[in-house]
Amino acid sequence: MSPVPDAFLALAHQMADASGEIARAKFRRDFDTETKADKSPVTEIDKAVEQMVRDLVDQHAPDHGVIGEEYEPTRPDAEFVWIVDPIDGTKSFVCGIPLFGTLIALRHGDDYVLGLVDQPVMRERWIGADGHGATMNGQAIRTRACPRLADAVVTTSGPDDYAYYAYDAMRPVHKAGKWVMYGGECYDYGLLAMGFHDVMIDADLHQHDFAAPTALIRNAGGVVSDWQGRPMRPSSDGRILAVGDPALHDQCLALIDG
Amino acid sequence: MSPVPDAFLALAHQMADASGEIARAKFRRDFDTETKADKSPVTEIDKAVEQMVRDLVDQHAPDHGVIGEEYEPTRPDAEFVWIVDPIDGTKSFVCGIPLFGTLIALRHGDDYVLGLVDQPVMRERWIGADGHGATMNGQAIRTRACPRLADAVVTTSGPDDYAYYAYDAMRPVHKAGKWVMYGGECYDYGLLAMGFHDVMIDADLHQHDFAAPTALIRNAGGVVSDWQGRPMRPSSDGRILAVGDPALHDQCLALIDG
Repeated sequence: MSPVPDAFLALAHQMADASGEIARAKFRRDFDTETKADKSPVTEIDKAVEQMVRDLVDQHAPDHGVIGEEYEPTRPDAEFVWIVDPIDGTKSFVCGIPLFGTLIALRHGDDYVLGLVDQPVMRERWIGADGHGATMNGQAIRTRACPRLADAVVTTSGPDDYAYYAYDAMRPVHKAGKWVMYGGECYDYGLLAMGFHDVMIDADLHQHDFAAPTALIRNAGGVVSDWQGRPMRPSSDGRILAVGDPALHDQCLALIDG
Repeated sequence: MSPVPDAFLALAHQMADASGEIARAKFRRDFDTETKADKSPVTEIDKAVEQMVRDLVDQHAPDHGVIGEEYEPTRPDAEFVWIVDPIDGTKSFVCGIPLFGTLIALRHGDDYVLGLVDQPVMRERWIGADGHGATMNGQAIRTRACPRLADAVVTTSGPDDYAYYAYDAMRPVHKAGKWVMYGGECYDYGLLAMGFHDVMIDADLHQHDFAAPTALIRNAGGVVSDWQGRPMRPSSDGRILAVGDPALHDQCLALIDG
């Protein structure tokens, strides 16, 4: 598509500003936590952030849709749909680890055209959008050159975070890299976009997990796909391979065992 | 022993203040990195911090010993020995992840009587010392009650960070807890000391890795031992079990498979 309108970037920043206020006020303090059907936690902050995003869309872009983690989709067939994970890494949030984040993406048709990752405690915000490149706290960023997988920093979630087949399938990529870093959650996508990491490989993601990283990293110069090399889409199976140097993409795809 | 003299706490803070200045100035900037024999990285910052600690000891406590990660021990048989890991989590430092830390401990005979963990980017400092309890940025902290392992947040390094027998041996503890969080490095000990995590289990540590966490967590109300339940000592084999609620200690020891 043509460049994302400036007004949409401004709306994304407005959402992240408000989300950060909510999350910072509650980080390491008392808040209500429930346990979802999949045994993952959800806090009152997740719900408050998502409601705020929904209110902002209703106010500023009432013809846009919203898909979030906590509530039912609104206008999911609209031309533009906002996709929000209020607190990605809720376990980290609950455990006092400042690597959780708010993920905000804008989908145009089947394409993710804007992606924002915000870490409110560190006050770090990465955003990438079609026609705008990528920035971190307003400074232009790009992925780094790393043509050889043997030199690559590879990141992933913990081995307990997915079905075991997925962990086994990604192990050859881990072992071919220089180091494997665990536990960074969405924060790792920010560091990949700005050239501190080289590969992120993950599985069992929902659209609200992968939409924002996909648009961010693509606009920072990297390549993002599923494990078959196809672009990430609403119908994706939740397995993701993101590389900073496009030369790493085929090397990683060839090693994934499943 | 009797309470650690106030002057020794002041010296530890002085070391951490200076270390933080060095680390913050270089974080996410250009610096020289070498690769050690075990393939782990060491940066010019590791060396600069350790040299600074050595200079401060020579200046303020010239009869104390110093054992660090990067240089040969000085006066290792002194009554008081400072044990320093300039940058614990060097990979995190190099990769731009703000969870690395400076570890400073004071050993009296075979006992670790003071332990400091400092995260200079977050500007968070945990310190515990015999006779002084434990604090985080000056506020008194304690571990939290968590009598049942099924309710416990368990932390550990990544599965690639130790010999595989160690990972296999600790897996029953991971699986008995509520969640396993990876990748937090020394930062996890700080969060354990202040009641956000419950169990840290790790292996293949050196004295400069475990000395400061041991004194910190003991003085915050927790229990720290090797995998046989013995106090951590200079001769320890580098396997550590730290729990916030003493009631968890025997439950974890009984599950370790090796």
